[in-house]
Amino acid sequence: MTGTRLDVLAIGDAIVDVIAHVDEDFLVEERLVKGSMQVLDAEGAKRLYSKMPQAKETSGGSAANTMAGVAALGGRAGFVGQIADDQLGDIFAHDIRALGVEFRTAPLKGGLPTGRCLIVVTPDAQRTMNTFRGAAHELTVAALDGEQIRDSAILYLEAYLWRSKGPRAAMDDAMRIAHQAGRKVAFTLSDIACIAPHRAEMMAMIEAGAIDLLFANENEICELADLADRDSAVAAIQGKVPLLVVTCGADGALAIERGRRVEVPIARIGRPVVDTTGAGDLFAAGFLVGQARDRDLEQSLRIGAVAAAEVISHVGARPEAGLRELVEKL
Amino acid sequence: MTGTRLDVLAIGDAIVDVIAHVDEDFLVEERLVKGSMQVLDAEGAKRLYSKMPQAKETSGGSAANTMAGVAALGGRAGFVGQIADDQLGDIFAHDIRALGVEFRTAPLKGGLPTGRCLIVVTPDAQRTMNTFRGAAHELTVAALDGEQIRDSAILYLEAYLWRSKGPRAAMDDAMRIAHQAGRKVAFTLSDIACIAPHRAEMMAMIEAGAIDLLFANENEICELADLADRDSAVAAIQGKVPLLVVTCGADGALAIERGRRVEVPIARIGRPVVDTTGAGDLFAAGFLVGQARDRDLEQSLRIGAVAAAEVISHVGARPEAGLRELVEKL
Repeated sequence: MTGTRLDVLAIGDAIVDVIAHVDEDFLVEERLVKGSMQVLDAEGAKRLYSKMPQAKETSGGSAANTMAGVAALGGRAGFVGQIADDQLGDIFAHDIRALGVEFRTAPLKGGLPTGRCLIVVTPDAQRTMNTFRGAAHELTVAALDGEQIRDSAILYLEAYLWRSKGPRAAMDDAMRIAHQAGRKVAFTLSDIACIAPHRAEMMAMIEAGAIDLLFANENEICELADLADRDSAVAAIQGKVPLLVVTCGADGALAIERGRRVEVPIARIGRPVVDTTGAGDLFAAGFLVGQARDRDLEQSLRIGAVAAAEVISHVGARPEAGLRELVEKL
Repeated sequence: MTGTRLDVLAIGDAIVDVIAHVDEDFLVEERLVKGSMQVLDAEGAKRLYSKMPQAKETSGGSAANTMAGVAALGGRAGFVGQIADDQLGDIFAHDIRALGVEFRTAPLKGGLPTGRCLIVVTPDAQRTMNTFRGAAHELTVAALDGEQIRDSAILYLEAYLWRSKGPRAAMDDAMRIAHQAGRKVAFTLSDIACIAPHRAEMMAMIEAGAIDLLFANENEICELADLADRDSAVAAIQGKVPLLVVTCGADGALAIERGRRVEVPIARIGRPVVDTTGAGDLFAAGFLVGQARDRDLEQSLRIGAVAAAEVISHVGARPEAGLRELVEKL
């Protein structure tokens, strides 16, 4: 994985997170399903925000968080995502560029505002996400730069954005460009809510060989396989992709590459778990950096596990100072 | 201090903080004086922001932070401050209302955007602030509600905002309304940069009896008295205000009321110091709540010291969960 200008280029949601701490009663009163991600319209987002306590704002977006992690780990990352020409868009663009991630997508003028994700964190450190997509899902093929895609060893796509029509057309184009240039395509299943309504198209895409590296957590792989048991689900999918990576919560993570299976436990870095937002995003970042540096499967999984452990030790879905040092200890 | 609908009503800067962690070299490269507050124009703010690393956004403003603290401690607080009709203004209004602070100031349309403060925190937990005031200093007399001022036991004003002409006219009016209704007026010196250019007017205001409770830190009281030594400065000012409260960094805090002097040490709550932003703001909050509940000088100082200790134990200038419990232990 050398010879390209970037290690990974992601296409994903350009979103600012609005994070507040709430008690369990808040989830009951607002009828929120703990740990889930739901999509809100502008009115629904306004209503929920009015009920939320004082919050902190940080740049987010699942694939964008992953690119932040890649850059924080010393990888060369790029991001394609649609912001609006507004203050939240300025914040998103500033933050991702400040991390050293290449971000060139022009802001959308006169349309929807920049997307945001209202995240409530309960005392058990679980996050419940409520997304107003805004400009993020207005992404079109016009946002793509073929040269940038060809210059990236891995193209990384998220199902959160893939499930919308316009963005999916852009992703289809990007996958074709990447494969024509001999690059790899990675895809994350994002959330169970992204899978069931699109299972047939998603399976067709996978079976057509469009995906070289599939990321899932245990719920998502079960949802994709439409099976209740994790091992059965992994068995059903592993033959359909060259490399399958599954995070299994407290059970750690596993990777299966052309029949060879490797497992690692979760990483312990001696810090309490504060906010689980971003765990999967940062796991993917660590794994991708490992792959970009030609580490083997086990080493790549371990880097992912440490990056996930770091991000859940503080509020917010992006790595803080010291992630690289943690990984270098490995 | 009973019989009024609110305990404290503040007039201050409506500002959103943009907080990033930097190393010492960043201060050198950007020629920033550690621990200071400087005012930037829109261009200067844009330039500095472009150099800053990824940041977190939280509502701020010195007097607004103090009202957040008053509310978090169970006091009844109100705030008057100028936001714009934009996303940062929405964030500011949401956060202060979510804390239970009464906030009615109408957003400014078509003018400057909502103000922000670019805060860089060095590894020694010191904060260096760079403020683009934006709409905040467009506050005028029209923003005042006489009934709200008369309904508040204490009117709390900050020098950060007072030094601008329009806001000062509003504050002059508010002080007159408060005193006519038999209410107390409190004033914080905010920062040494607010004092020297306005020392004569500030002293004239104090000597005219406009201020009942003056808050300062040790540098500010020296600057106001134009004396290098803290004890000499306190001695020079204490006879000019009914109640003088001075925070002295690691030496704790003191209050002098009509000749009676009380001192308390800093509070230790068993948490490391992470970010000193908001220490003075929250000290004032604790002291004001103590006064509103008819606690004596020593108790009021101790509540202030605990509130300050809590806010410096995490990133951001507003209290987090558990402040009230910490104070109830006293």
